[in-house]
Order: sequence, then C-alpha cells, then structure tokens
Amino acid sequence: MTRLVLDVDTGIDDTLALCYLLASPEAELMGVVGTYGNVTARDSVRNNHAVLRLFGREDIPVMLGCEAPSWSDLFEVDEGCARFHGSNGLGNVDPKDYLTDDDVAAVGASRGNTDATHDAALADTIDVTDAGDDLASSARPSVAAFRTRLTKSVGGERVDVETTAESAALADAAAASREGAGVRFIVDAVRAYGRDVTIVATGPLTDVDAAIRFAPDIVPNLRLVIMGGSLTQEGNCYDLICETNIFQDPEAANRVFRSGADVTMIGLDVTHQCLMTRADADLWRATGTRRGAFLADMVRFYINANEASDPIFLAGSPLHDPLAAAVALDRALVGLFDVNMMTETATGNGHGFRGRTIGDPTRLRESRKTSHVALTVDAPCFTARFRDRLAGLCAA
Amino acid sequence: MTRLVLDVDTGIDDTLALCYLLASPEAELMGVVGTYGNVTARDSVRNNHAVLRLFGREDIPVMLGCEAPSWSDLFEVDEGCARFHGSNGLGNVDPKDYLTDDDVAAVGASRGNTDATHDAALADTIDVTDAGDDLASSARPSVAAFRTRLTKSVGGERVDVETTAESAALADAAAASREGAGVRFIVDAVRAYGRDVTIVATGPLTDVDAAIRFAPDIVPNLRLVIMGGSLTQEGNCYDLICETNIFQDPEAANRVFRSGADVTMIGLDVTHQCLMTRADADLWRATGTRRGAFLADMVRFYINANEASDPIFLAGSPLHDPLAAAVALDRALVGLFDVNMMTETATGNGHGFRGRTIGDPTRLRESRKTSHVALTVDAPCFTARFRDRLAGLCAA
Repeated sequence: MTRLVLDVDTGIDDTLALCYLLASPEAELMGVVGTYGNVTARDSVRNNHAVLRLFGREDIPVMLGCEAPSWSDLFEVDEGCARFHGSNGLGNVDPKDYLTDDDVAAVGASRGNTDATHDAALADTIDVTDAGDDLASSARPSVAAFRTRLTKSVGGERVDVETTAESAALADAAAASREGAGVRFIVDAVRAYGRDVTIVATGPLTDVDAAIRFAPDIVPNLRLVIMGGSLTQEGNCYDLICETNIFQDPEAANRVFRSGADVTMIGLDVTHQCLMTRADADLWRATGTRRGAFLADMVRFYINANEASDPIFLAGSPLHDPLAAAVALDRALVGLFDVNMMTETATGNGHGFRGRTIGDPTRLRESRKTSHVALTVDAPCFTARFRDRLAGLCAA
Repeated sequence: MTRLVLDVDTGIDDTLALCYLLASPEAELMGVVGTYGNVTARDSVRNNHAVLRLFGREDIPVMLGCEAPSWSDLFEVDEGCARFHGSNGLGNVDPKDYLTDDDVAAVGASRGNTDATHDAALADTIDVTDAGDDLASSARPSVAAFRTRLTKSVGGERVDVETTAESAALADAAAASREGAGVRFIVDAVRAYGRDVTIVATGPLTDVDAAIRFAPDIVPNLRLVIMGGSLTQEGNCYDLICETNIFQDPEAANRVFRSGADVTMIGLDVTHQCLMTRADADLWRATGTRRGAFLADMVRFYINANEASDPIFLAGSPLHDPLAAAVALDRALVGLFDVNMMTETATGNGHGFRGRTIGDPTRLRESRKTSHVALTVDAPCFTARFRDRLAGLCAA
C-alpha cells in the first residue's frame, strides 16, 4: 500500500488523477487538498467533494489549500484554463446531475435529513469554511487597513487592483489559507508518516511551499511527486517556455526545488507522450453507469479543447495529472534523470525566464541530487492501465 | 581507429580539442575546418595552421569554412568571445613565439627556403585563399551591385550595415565560403566514408548545415558530434537560455537537428561538469617543453576569464570542446538521452526563444530518435585522461 495526500487544482485531469487513485487498490488516499490554478481553490474544494460523493468516497477528507500564489494577494482564473477545463473546472459538467435519487437520499440520511434534494446535498459539499474563514475571523488585522493597492494573479500574470472591502476580505482569506487546513494537513501527514506518505501535487506548488515555510522540519522527510514543469520539451504557456502549474507560482516552485526535499517531477517531457483518446471515454460510457457517463462527458470537453489547441493533440489529450498519480504508485513507469532543479523567477539578461524549470547551476556538481525528472515513460503500459482502472471504477 | 573531421572556431578550448585529438592514438584526423564564432573563420584557419605547425602535424589539411552565419552576410566577433579567448582566439598568446629556430628552419627547408624567419614561416600558414577567394573571383556577381544594406552578425546579434566596396567584398567571400573548401571537405568525407567518419563540430553549425544543403544525400550517413546547446542547464549567453555556438546560427542548428542526421549533442549539461584547473596547466608546463609552455600560457587566459565570469567556475574552467572530441572517440564517457531535438528560431509568445535548444514537440512520440544528448558524464575519468594525454603530447 502507498499512503498519499493529493493536492489538486481540480481541473479535468486533476479529477482523472483523483479517480485513478480511487481505482487503485494499492493506494491509500489520506486526504485531498484543493488549491487554486485551473479553478479557484474554493471551486477545487467543491469539485473534490462532488467527485468523491459521486464515487461514494465521502470518507476521504477534503481541505482548502492556498487561495492565491505566494507572490500575490489575490487569484483569478485566466481564460486559458477555462478553455481547457470549462468554467467550473469539470468541462461544464455538473457531478450532481449524475447522482441517483438513491445517492442523494443516502447522503441526506447519513446527515439526518431524509428530505434532502440534489441541490441541498451538494450545497453541503461546497462548505469551504474549514480553514480560511476560521483564521480570517481571528485577531489577524485586515490588509485593507494598511494598503491601498493589492496584487492579483490572473493565471500567473500580475495585475494591480484597488483595495475594496470585498478584495480586502478575499486577500485576508487568501493570507489565512497559507496556514490553513490544507497546508496543515500536509505538514501533519509528513510529521506523522515521514517518507511513508507521498504528497502528490498536481497544481501550483504554493501549498507545499507554505507547508515547508510553516514547518521546515518536514523537509528531510518530504517525499513529493509533482505534475509540473518541463525540462526537455517546450512549455504549454503562451511563451512555450513555461509549464502552467509552475508559471502560477515560480517563487514557490523554486523554494521547493531548492529546499532539499525529494521531488519527482512529472513534466511535459512525459505527459505529452501519454494520450487519452475518445475510445477511452467510450469504454467508460459503455459501462452503462452514471459514473462512466460523467467521466465520458467531462473528458469530451478536454479532448475538444486539446484538439483545437495544437495539432500534436489530434492523436489524443495529455494525461498530465493522472501520470503523476500513477508514478507515485509505480515509479517503474518512467525513466528518471537525477538532477538538482530550480525555477527561474525573473526574465531578462542574467535572469533567464520567469517560470522556467531548469537545472540549478550552483548544484550541478553536487553528488546528491534532490530532484528526479521523468524523461521517458512506458506510455502504452500507463495509458492502458489508466483506461482500464477507470473503467473498473465506473463499473464498481 | 576513429576517422574524424574537426570543424572549429579556434578558440582556446577548440585548440585543446584539436590537441586532444593529436594526442589520441585511436584518432585519425582527416582534416580541420576553420569557421567563424570565437574568432573570424580566417583567424580560425590561421590558428589551426599555427597550432598544427607547433605540434609538428602540418600534414593535416586545414580548410576555410563558412565566414558568416546562414542568416547573415557578414560576421564580427563580439566582445564576450574576446573576453574568454583573447583577441586572437588563443588567449593573446602567439604560437610562433614557441617555435624553435630548428622548427622554423625545418619548415623553411621543406619549402625550399632555408633562410626563412619565424614571421615568414608563419605568414605562409595564414594563407586562406584556399576556398572563398577562388570562388569570389569567379563569375559570381557581387552583392554590392544589388543591395544598399547588408546584415552583419555581431556574435549572433543582428546589425544592419551600409554596403561599401569593402563590406561587399567580404560578403561576397562569405557567400562563396558556403560552398567552399571546408564545406566541400565535409561533404567529400561523408560521401567517401559514410558512418566511418565522424564530423566533430565545436562551433556554430553553419558548415554542417551548408554541407547538408549542398549535398542532401549525405544526411543518412552523417555521423555528427557537436559541442553546442544546453538542454537541462542554463545557457551561457547573457540571456541564460542559449548556448553560444547555437546562438550564432539558430536556423542552421535547427535544420541540422531536424535533417534526420545522427547528432550527438555535448552541451553545457555535461561540459560544465568537466573542469580544467591551474594544476593541469602546471603539469603541461612541467614537461619543460615549448609546447607545454604554449598550452599553459594560453589556458591561463581562459581560466582567468572563467573565474571572473561566474563563481561556479572558481573550481575550474569548462572543457567544452575537448569533451566533444573525447566523446567522438569514446561514447562511454557520457550518458546519452535519445530525443528528437530542435532549435527555436524566434522569440515571443508562440515561438519560444531564439537560439534555445529543446525537444521537438512534433517528433516527441516518434520511435526513431535522431539526437542523443549527453546528460551525465564521468568527469573524473575524462578530466584525468584529458590532462594526461595533453601532457604526453607536450612531452613527445
């Protein structure tokens, strides 16, 4: 058994990664942290709850992670992400539409409310007061009292905004989330299990960075598998240099890479080799289950978006986050290059390119390598395993 | 025995690569092509002649390669190159100062002139009429007759200059050099020996690209080892993204990578791990020979320049070009990552970064990989072998 914490910005392929772990008998999923990226952190938490409910795994705790990058007060999803993941992160498909009346009744019953409707049952799952709001309501002073302007990240691009009552409240909540339930869950898991728990992060590395800053003692025992970055292939941001997750918070990624923690990097080098096709979705739909219909409907959006974005994805859509989840369970799927990594945090002569993941020249000749970058992958093995495990999950 | 053609922009480390091949009993060096880069192509030819004379190997033919990048009419060395290699490419050390009177007399005698002086003997070696001038004097019309402006590459940066009689003559010679003796020597070698000859290119890839364009039939049999590019480490241009050789002519590099030819890339990934120290130079000087003194004096300039450029080189100076020469003789020195490479030729959204070497997304999933990028190196083995072979060459 592999003990895991999943940190996701849910996201279609994040959802597929979550489902892959649910479908894998060797995975023991301790909890799911929802962070910003493909969606807002609150939408990520909502999506995680909804997906876990649909797949009958509400026993797995869901926590709110960081709501904004480490370098910004606020976060807003950019249109690029919405184009690949839909406005709700799940390809504009709503998991509650796939719940049976029995599901809803069962959920209601478990909460002592047999009259629950779909909406009421779902409304309960989008309660994200767990962390941020608790702390925001404490004695912490509002940023609005001190600053006239706030920084906002729009998908990684910096925008300055005026401080209003509303934006100050959001910034206060985002600041509180940096030491909130999601970050503390990661800290507690590593403190409790050390290298016997793997943190799988498929969004920006803000939560992991916050955990390290909150509890530097976890670093020597932190075993991390990330979906993020690109070392030997072009990036997937407009610049073709950066990968989306790292671009959201280069400073956090850089601190994590340079912390000394053990990082296995699943980047575009390998995820662009592992493609999901319409035939996979058809197989899930052919299970005749509501879960299969949900997955097939959701990924249709993703496949359409990828096909429209680049001819290289006419053959299929990249399984970014599921591959990271799969490697956390079975490292033999990839060939790893041991290297000390960094992320450049500024652009221009003498700086490189903000958001680029690259070898750290100051640690090139050190014999200890803290990062392991997947450069090759057994794509046929992984894509078949992925397809079949998700089919099994739908049919179960 | 390994049959080789060396294509160099000579350059201190190019000189060391040439000496390494002269010192290697398993190397059969067919010829040396001098191209632009660290110095002008004519200075490269002059340096090659002078070094071969000092080491008693004037039997090896020296040819003039391309005098300017494929995208430019003219070339000028930038000050960054002069900082690392000196104004003459050899650390401002003159090989003729290390010839004995006997050497000079012998050279003179072999040419029927026993009264030759150092200067006269050397003057003979800087005759670069072999290729360009022959063709320039043919029926080819001058560019000056048609254009009012010419493009000049200053170390890879484009500058537009006015057409004058002088610049037109230089541009004519550069245009002629694209089908000149150096390029034709590469073509003829591959046509004659196929994969039984290795082209080692330690400067811009302009000559190899020109050879492929002149004779596309050589591609299936072209076995190439280059010093150039960087895949998993920062670059060594000011931008920290590009490597100097590739930056000089990204279009040529891109065409070579995408031609289908077999390319072994020795980039900064590995050359920054193989360092030459002052102790190495001391060993060569301790041979008590003029050749040892020449090498030690020359590399002192290079070591000083590297130390001044970056703290990572306080431990030693990178053996870029010698490593490529060594790998051409012994591939076991490095760990190779098979990948289809490209060079980006424009900067900006949708383009990447002009001069960056990176995996080619359009060929990522092809099973045939035409490039082999060295990512690991047995640095202790190579640096010791390099030091000892050059010491042996000095003492011989």
